[in-house]
Amino acid sequence: MTVSAPGSRTEIEEGAAFTPRFDAQGLIACIAVDAGDGRVLMMAHMNAESLALTLKTGQAWYWSRSRGELWHKGATSGQVQTVVSMRVDCDQDTLLITVNVGGDGGCCHTGRRDCFYRTVSVDPRTGLASLETAR
Amino acid sequence: MTVSAPGSRTEIEEGAAFTPRFDAQGLIACIAVDAGDGRVLMMAHMNAESLALTLKTGQAWYWSRSRGELWHKGATSGQVQTVVSMRVDCDQDTLLITVNVGGDGGCCHTGRRDCFYRTVSVDPRTGLASLETAR
Repeated sequence: MTVSAPGSRTEIEEGAAFTPRFDAQGLIACIAVDAGDGRVLMMAHMNAESLALTLKTGQAWYWSRSRGELWHKGATSGQVQTVVSMRVDCDQDTLLITVNVGGDGGCCHTGRRDCFYRTVSVDPRTGLASLETAR
Repeated sequence: MTVSAPGSRTEIEEGAAFTPRFDAQGLIACIAVDAGDGRVLMMAHMNAESLALTLKTGQAWYWSRSRGELWHKGATSGQVQTVVSMRVDCDQDTLLITVNVGGDGGCCHTGRRDCFYRTVSVDPRTGLASLETAR
């Protein structure tokens, strides 16, 4: 994969050149959505190498910030994410991939299908925010 | 809104305490999804103040990294995002809000309904990645 450096704002927003804007740590955020029902599964990060591997292999590769290493999603769990499409947002600092999930169809390391399994609620009297299981 | 500092990994992943993990810049990523059809609209960031305002007012407030200021989404465009639900992911470093969008129902500053209007494609012969209008 060959990508160019970001150009002007108009080029970034309206151009046909893919110029991902990695942050100071060399990472770009990537949202993974289930191609089947559109559910948001997870959000993780890619560096240039994992992005290139994702585009080359058609499977999602991330950069694990906690482990500090390339992360072939599903390599051990079988929950490989086969990329159906990859989109980029207006300012090219966020990716959105739609994926078909292998294995048991799950995504989260806690065993849930996706990572967003808790809802934030705020008690209007106390102002205290707490979490409830979303489903 | 009152939140606590993050605890152990088990508390973060399985507990009922909302302990958002802001990054070194004091920000947490927030994905906004249309409550009507589940489409991913945008990804932006919140700091503690904008998160508190979001929970207090029921409308999405972000932190604009480019402008370095609080950003009441839709304050000028009318595209206010009324929050239907807020979820947090397993390690509490990403938020997911479902929203009803005011005004013309759009979200992106370029005039599109959402920010992910271009698909990344790679020419298998040249390895060159380019963008196509997604829809």
